[in-house]
Amino acid sequence: MEIEKKFLVKYLPEDLEKYPYDKIEQGYLCGNPVLRIRKRNNEYILTYKSREGVEKAAGVCACIEEELALTEESFFHLKEKTDGIWIKKTRYQIPYEEFIIELDIFHEDYEGLVLAEVEFKSLTQSEKFIPPEWFGENVSDDMRYSNRVMSEEKIDFGF
Amino acid sequence: MEIEKKFLVKYLPEDLEKYPYDKIEQGYLCGNPVLRIRKRNNEYILTYKSREGVEKAAGVCACIEEELALTEESFFHLKEKTDGIWIKKTRYQIPYEEFIIELDIFHEDYEGLVLAEVEFKSLTQSEKFIPPEWFGENVSDDMRYSNRVMSEEKIDFGF
Repeated sequence: MEIEKKFLVKYLPEDLEKYPYDKIEQGYLCGNPVLRIRKRNNEYILTYKSREGVEKAAGVCACIEEELALTEESFFHLKEKTDGIWIKKTRYQIPYEEFIIELDIFHEDYEGLVLAEVEFKSLTQSEKFIPPEWFGENVSDDMRYSNRVMSEEKIDFGF
Repeated sequence: MEIEKKFLVKYLPEDLEKYPYDKIEQGYLCGNPVLRIRKRNNEYILTYKSREGVEKAAGVCACIEEELALTEESFFHLKEKTDGIWIKKTRYQIPYEEFIIELDIFHEDYEGLVLAEVEFKSLTQSEKFIPPEWFGENVSDDMRYSNRVMSEEKIDFGF
Protein backbone atom coordinates (compact mmCIF):
# COMPACT_ATOMS: atom_id res chain seq x y z
CA MET A 1 0.00 0.00 0.00
CA GLU A 2 1.49 3.32 -1.11
CA ILE A 3 1.26 6.29 1.27
CA GLU A 4 2.13 9.47 -0.56
CA LYS A 5 1.32 13.16 -0.83
CA LYS A 6 1.23 15.30 -3.94
CA PHE A 7 1.77 19.07 -4.07
CA LEU A 8 1.80 21.91 -6.55
CA VAL A 9 4.99 23.98 -6.37
CA LYS A 10 5.29 27.76 -5.90
CA TYR A 11 8.74 27.89 -7.47
CA LEU A 12 11.43 25.44 -8.51
CA PRO A 13 14.26 24.67 -6.09
CA GLU A 14 17.67 26.20 -6.88
CA ASP A 15 20.27 24.30 -8.90
CA LEU A 16 17.76 21.75 -10.14
CA GLU A 17 20.31 20.41 -12.62
CA LYS A 18 22.48 19.04 -9.81
CA TYR A 19 19.91 16.37 -8.89
CA PRO A 20 19.55 12.99 -10.60
CA TYR A 21 16.62 12.73 -12.96
CA ASP A 22 14.78 10.29 -15.20
CA LYS A 23 13.16 10.97 -18.54
CA ILE A 24 9.74 9.33 -18.31
CA GLU A 25 7.01 8.82 -20.85
CA GLN A 26 3.94 6.72 -20.33
CA GLY A 27 0.47 5.78 -21.42
CA TYR A 28 -2.39 3.56 -20.32
CA LEU A 29 -3.92 0.47 -21.89
CA CYS A 30 -6.59 0.24 -19.22
CA GLY A 31 -7.80 2.29 -16.25
CA ASN A 32 -9.07 -0.27 -13.71
CA PRO A 33 -7.00 -2.25 -13.09
CA VAL A 34 -4.38 0.23 -14.25
CA LEU A 35 -2.26 -1.18 -17.06
CA ARG A 36 0.45 1.34 -17.80
CA ILE A 37 3.44 1.20 -20.13
CA ARG A 38 6.37 3.40 -19.24
CA LYS A 39 9.73 4.25 -20.81
CA ARG A 40 12.15 5.41 -18.12
CA ASN A 41 15.38 6.46 -19.79
CA ASN A 42 16.22 3.27 -21.68
CA GLU A 43 14.05 0.90 -19.68
CA TYR A 44 10.62 -0.32 -20.78
CA ILE A 45 8.19 -1.33 -18.08
CA LEU A 46 4.64 -2.62 -17.91
CA THR A 47 2.93 -1.79 -14.62
CA TYR A 48 -0.26 -3.40 -13.34
CA LYS A 49 -2.05 -1.78 -10.41
CA SER A 50 -5.19 -3.33 -9.10
CA ARG A 51 -7.71 -1.07 -7.46
CA GLU A 52 -11.02 -1.41 -5.72
CA GLY A 53 -13.38 -3.56 -7.71
CA VAL A 54 -10.78 -5.96 -9.04
CA GLU A 55 -11.95 -9.31 -7.78
CA LYS A 56 -9.53 -12.03 -6.91
CA ALA A 57 -9.96 -14.64 -9.63
CA ALA A 58 -9.39 -18.20 -8.45
CA GLY A 59 -5.69 -18.96 -8.40
CA VAL A 60 -4.78 -15.49 -9.57
CA CYS A 61 -2.99 -12.94 -7.45
CA ALA A 62 -4.90 -9.65 -7.38
CA CYS A 63 -1.70 -7.88 -6.43
CA ILE A 64 -1.66 -4.19 -5.62
CA GLU A 65 1.27 -3.41 -7.95
CA GLU A 66 3.38 -5.48 -10.32
CA GLU A 67 6.17 -4.27 -12.60
CA LEU A 68 7.13 -6.35 -15.63
CA ALA A 69 9.86 -5.87 -18.21
CA LEU A 70 9.06 -5.04 -21.82
CA THR A 71 11.35 -5.01 -24.82
CA GLU A 72 11.71 -1.80 -26.84
CA GLU A 73 9.78 -3.45 -29.69
CA SER A 74 6.89 -4.58 -27.47
CA PHE A 75 6.76 -1.13 -25.86
CA PHE A 76 6.21 0.55 -29.23
CA HIS A 77 3.73 -2.15 -30.26
CA LEU A 78 1.70 -1.49 -27.09
CA LYS A 79 2.10 2.28 -27.35
CA GLU A 80 -0.19 2.18 -30.42
CA LYS A 81 -2.88 0.70 -28.16
CA THR A 82 -2.81 3.24 -25.34
CA ASP A 83 -5.86 5.37 -24.60
CA GLY A 84 -5.97 9.15 -24.72
CA ILE A 85 -2.97 11.35 -23.99
CA TRP A 86 0.65 10.28 -23.87
CA ILE A 87 2.36 11.69 -20.75
CA LYS A 88 5.95 12.97 -20.84
CA LYS A 89 7.84 14.31 -17.87
CA THR A 90 11.26 14.72 -16.32
CA ARG A 91 11.37 13.36 -12.79
CA TYR A 92 14.02 14.82 -10.45
CA GLN A 93 14.96 13.05 -7.22
CA ILE A 94 15.56 15.68 -4.54
CA PRO A 95 16.66 14.67 -1.05
CA TYR A 96 14.84 16.59 1.70
CA GLU A 97 15.31 15.69 5.36
CA GLU A 98 14.63 11.94 5.58
CA PHE A 99 12.61 11.97 2.34
CA ILE A 100 13.14 11.92 -1.40
CA ILE A 101 10.98 14.44 -3.24
CA GLU A 102 10.02 13.35 -6.74
CA LEU A 103 9.61 16.51 -8.76
CA ASP A 104 7.77 15.95 -12.03
CA ILE A 105 8.17 18.58 -14.71
CA PHE A 106 5.70 17.84 -17.46
CA HIS A 107 6.23 18.38 -21.18
CA GLU A 108 4.21 18.65 -24.39
CA ASP A 109 0.45 18.39 -23.61
CA TYR A 110 1.06 19.35 -19.98
CA GLU A 111 3.94 21.80 -20.46
CA GLY A 112 3.89 24.19 -17.50
CA LEU A 113 2.63 21.66 -14.97
CA VAL A 114 4.97 20.79 -12.11
CA LEU A 115 4.07 18.35 -9.34
CA ALA A 116 6.02 17.19 -6.30
CA GLU A 117 5.40 13.82 -4.69
CA VAL A 118 6.69 12.39 -1.45
CA GLU A 119 6.31 8.78 -0.44
CA PHE A 120 6.16 7.76 3.22
CA LYS A 121 6.90 4.57 5.08
CA SER A 122 3.97 5.02 7.47
CA LEU A 123 0.95 7.21 8.19
CA THR A 124 2.76 8.59 11.26
CA GLN A 125 5.67 9.67 9.07
CA SER A 126 3.29 11.32 6.58
CA GLU A 127 1.58 13.27 9.39
CA LYS A 128 4.92 14.60 10.68
CA PHE A 129 5.93 15.86 7.22
CA ILE A 130 6.48 19.65 7.00
CA PRO A 131 6.69 20.66 3.31
CA PRO A 132 9.60 22.80 2.15
CA GLU A 133 8.98 26.50 1.49
CA TRP A 134 8.80 26.01 -2.29
CA PHE A 135 5.83 23.57 -2.09
CA GLY A 136 2.35 24.90 -2.90
CA GLU A 137 -1.10 23.46 -2.38
CA ASN A 138 -1.53 19.83 -1.31
CA VAL A 139 -3.45 18.24 -4.21
CA SER A 140 -3.28 14.63 -3.02
CA ASP A 141 -7.07 14.29 -3.08
CA ASP A 142 -7.57 16.08 -6.39
CA MET A 143 -7.95 13.29 -8.93
CA ARG A 144 -7.28 15.69 -11.84
CA TYR A 145 -3.59 15.47 -10.95
CA SER A 146 -3.52 11.68 -11.28
CA ASN A 147 -1.40 10.82 -14.33
CA ARG A 148 -3.99 8.26 -15.30
CA VAL A 149 -6.82 10.80 -15.21
CA MET A 150 -4.60 13.32 -17.04
CA SER A 151 -4.14 10.74 -19.79
CA GLU A 152 -7.88 10.19 -20.32
CA GLU A 153 -8.44 13.61 -21.82
CA LYS A 154 -6.61 16.91 -21.75
CA ILE A 155 -7.25 18.71 -18.45
CA ASP A 156 -7.10 22.51 -18.51
CA PHE A 157 -4.97 23.53 -15.54
CA GLY A 158 -5.05 27.15 -16.69
CA PHE A 159 -1.51 27.47 -18.05
CA MET B 1 9.81 -23.23 -16.27
CA GLU B 2 7.02 -25.18 -17.92
CA ILE B 3 7.78 -28.67 -19.22
CA GLU B 4 4.97 -29.87 -21.44
CA LYS B 5 4.17 -31.92 -24.51
CA LYS B 6 1.52 -31.28 -27.10
CA PHE B 7 -0.14 -33.88 -29.31
CA LEU B 8 -2.70 -34.16 -32.07
CA VAL B 9 -5.42 -36.69 -31.32
CA LYS B 10 -6.54 -39.65 -33.44
CA TYR B 11 -9.99 -39.79 -31.82
CA LEU B 12 -11.73 -38.33 -28.81
CA PRO B 13 -11.82 -40.35 -25.59
CA GLU B 14 -15.15 -41.92 -24.67
CA ASP B 15 -17.65 -40.16 -22.45
CA LEU B 16 -15.92 -36.82 -22.80
CA GLU B 17 -18.85 -35.08 -21.12
CA LYS B 18 -18.07 -36.76 -17.79
CA TYR B 19 -14.84 -34.76 -17.35
CA PRO B 20 -14.64 -31.24 -15.96
CA TYR B 21 -14.09 -28.52 -18.52
CA ASP B 22 -13.52 -24.80 -18.90
CA LYS B 23 -14.83 -22.51 -21.61
CA ILE B 24 -11.81 -20.46 -22.66
CA GLU B 25 -11.45 -17.53 -25.03
CA GLN B 26 -8.31 -15.48 -25.41
CA GLY B 27 -6.36 -13.00 -27.44
CA TYR B 28 -2.95 -11.33 -27.43
CA LEU B 29 -1.93 -7.70 -26.91
CA CYS B 30 1.72 -8.50 -27.57
CA GLY B 31 3.82 -11.45 -28.68
CA ASN B 32 7.17 -11.04 -26.93
CA PRO B 33 6.81 -10.78 -24.02
CA VAL B 34 3.45 -12.52 -24.36
CA LEU B 35 0.62 -10.39 -23.02
CA ARG B 36 -2.53 -12.46 -23.20
CA ILE B 37 -6.06 -11.78 -21.97
CA ARG B 38 -8.21 -14.78 -21.22
CA LYS B 39 -11.80 -15.39 -20.17
CA ARG B 40 -12.05 -18.74 -18.39
CA ASN B 41 -15.70 -19.39 -17.59
CA ASN B 42 -16.51 -16.25 -15.56
CA GLU B 43 -12.93 -15.29 -14.70
CA TYR B 44 -10.92 -12.64 -16.52
CA ILE B 45 -7.15 -12.99 -16.46
CA LEU B 46 -4.18 -11.08 -17.84
CA THR B 47 -1.13 -13.29 -18.37
CA TYR B 48 2.40 -12.05 -18.91
CA LYS B 49 5.01 -14.52 -20.15
CA SER B 50 8.53 -13.33 -20.69
CA ARG B 51 10.60 -15.11 -23.29
CA GLU B 52 14.10 -14.99 -24.60
CA GLY B 53 15.12 -11.44 -25.41
CA VAL B 54 13.22 -9.81 -22.57
CA GLU B 55 15.92 -8.02 -20.62
CA LYS B 56 15.69 -7.59 -16.90
CA ALA B 57 15.07 -3.88 -16.38
CA ALA B 58 16.60 -2.47 -13.20
CA GLY B 59 14.35 -3.18 -10.25
CA VAL B 60 11.84 -4.98 -12.41
CA CYS B 61 11.17 -8.69 -12.24
CA ALA B 62 11.43 -10.33 -15.66
CA CYS B 63 9.31 -13.22 -14.40
CA ILE B 64 8.62 -16.21 -16.58
CA GLU B 65 4.86 -16.14 -16.01
CA GLU B 66 2.56 -13.85 -14.08
CA GLU B 67 -1.23 -14.05 -13.87
CA LEU B 68 -3.18 -10.93 -12.92
CA ALA B 69 -6.89 -10.42 -12.36
CA LEU B 70 -8.99 -8.30 -14.70
CA THR B 71 -12.53 -7.04 -14.28
CA GLU B 72 -15.14 -7.94 -16.90
CA GLU B 73 -15.13 -4.30 -18.06
CA SER B 74 -11.34 -4.09 -18.42
CA PHE B 75 -11.32 -7.43 -20.25
CA PHE B 76 -13.69 -6.12 -22.92
CA HIS B 77 -11.78 -2.83 -23.10
CA LEU B 78 -8.54 -4.73 -23.75
CA LYS B 79 -10.22 -7.21 -26.11
CA GLU B 80 -10.63 -4.34 -28.61
CA LYS B 81 -6.83 -3.99 -28.59
CA THR B 82 -5.86 -7.60 -29.26
CA ASP B 83 -3.98 -8.55 -32.42
CA GLY B 84 -5.21 -10.96 -35.05
CA ILE B 85 -7.48 -13.89 -34.31
CA TRP B 86 -9.55 -14.43 -31.20
CA ILE B 87 -9.11 -18.01 -29.92
CA LYS B 88 -12.05 -19.98 -28.46
CA LYS B 89 -11.81 -23.47 -27.07
CA THR B 90 -13.26 -25.88 -24.57
CA ARG B 91 -10.60 -27.38 -22.33
CA TYR B 92 -11.33 -30.75 -20.75
CA GLN B 93 -9.30 -32.02 -17.80
CA ILE B 94 -8.79 -35.76 -18.22
CA PRO B 95 -6.93 -37.78 -15.56
CA TYR B 96 -4.49 -40.29 -17.04
CA GLU B 97 -2.12 -42.26 -14.82
CA GLU B 98 -0.31 -39.68 -12.70
CA PHE B 99 -1.07 -36.89 -15.19
CA ILE B 100 -3.87 -34.54 -16.16
CA ILE B 101 -4.41 -34.31 -19.89
CA GLU B 102 -5.70 -30.96 -21.04
CA LEU B 103 -7.76 -31.60 -24.14
CA ASP B 104 -8.47 -28.43 -26.13
CA ILE B 105 -11.34 -28.56 -28.58
CA PHE B 106 -11.22 -25.40 -30.68
CA HIS B 107 -14.19 -23.46 -32.02
CA GLU B 108 -14.99 -20.85 -34.66
CA ASP B 109 -11.83 -19.98 -36.66
CA TYR B 110 -10.19 -23.25 -35.62
CA GLU B 111 -13.27 -25.50 -35.55
CA GLY B 112 -12.05 -29.05 -36.13
CA LEU B 113 -8.71 -28.66 -34.37
CA VAL B 114 -8.15 -30.73 -31.24
CA LEU B 115 -4.94 -30.66 -29.21
CA ALA B 116 -3.91 -32.53 -26.08
CA GLU B 117 -1.35 -31.13 -23.66
CA VAL B 118 0.35 -32.73 -20.70
CA GLU B 119 2.44 -30.85 -18.18
CA PHE B 120 5.27 -32.53 -16.30
CA LYS B 121 7.00 -31.85 -13.02
CA SER B 122 10.41 -32.79 -14.39
CA LEU B 123 12.26 -33.78 -17.55
CA THR B 124 12.59 -37.32 -16.22
CA GLN B 125 8.83 -37.53 -15.80
CA SER B 126 8.29 -36.23 -19.35
CA GLU B 127 10.67 -38.85 -20.77
CA LYS B 128 8.81 -41.68 -18.99
CA PHE B 129 5.46 -40.57 -20.42
CA ILE B 130 3.70 -43.13 -22.65
CA PRO B 131 0.84 -41.44 -24.53
CA PRO B 132 -2.60 -43.06 -24.47
CA GLU B 133 -3.84 -44.90 -27.56
CA TRP B 134 -6.02 -41.98 -28.71
CA PHE B 135 -3.08 -39.56 -28.96
CA GLY B 136 -1.64 -38.76 -32.39
CA GLU B 137 1.52 -37.02 -33.52
CA ASN B 138 3.68 -35.18 -31.01
CA VAL B 139 3.59 -31.55 -32.23
CA SER B 140 5.43 -29.97 -29.28
CA ASP B 141 8.07 -28.47 -31.56
CA ASP B 142 5.68 -27.30 -34.27
CA MET B 143 5.14 -23.61 -33.55
CA ARG B 144 2.02 -23.50 -35.75
CA TYR B 145 0.17 -25.15 -32.87
CA SER B 146 1.11 -22.43 -30.41
CA ASN B 147 -2.06 -20.52 -29.54
CA ARG B 148 -0.10 -17.28 -29.86
CA VAL B 149 1.07 -18.13 -33.37
CA MET B 150 -2.45 -19.33 -34.25
CA SER B 151 -3.74 -15.90 -33.20
CA GLU B 152 -1.36 -13.98 -35.48
CA GLU B 153 -3.06 -15.10 -38.65
CA LYS B 154 -5.34 -17.94 -39.65
CA ILE B 155 -3.33 -21.13 -40.10
CA ASP B 156 -4.70 -23.69 -42.55
CA PHE B 157 -4.53 -27.06 -40.80
CA GLY B 158 -6.39 -28.65 -43.70
CA PHE B 159 -9.82 -29.12 -42.08
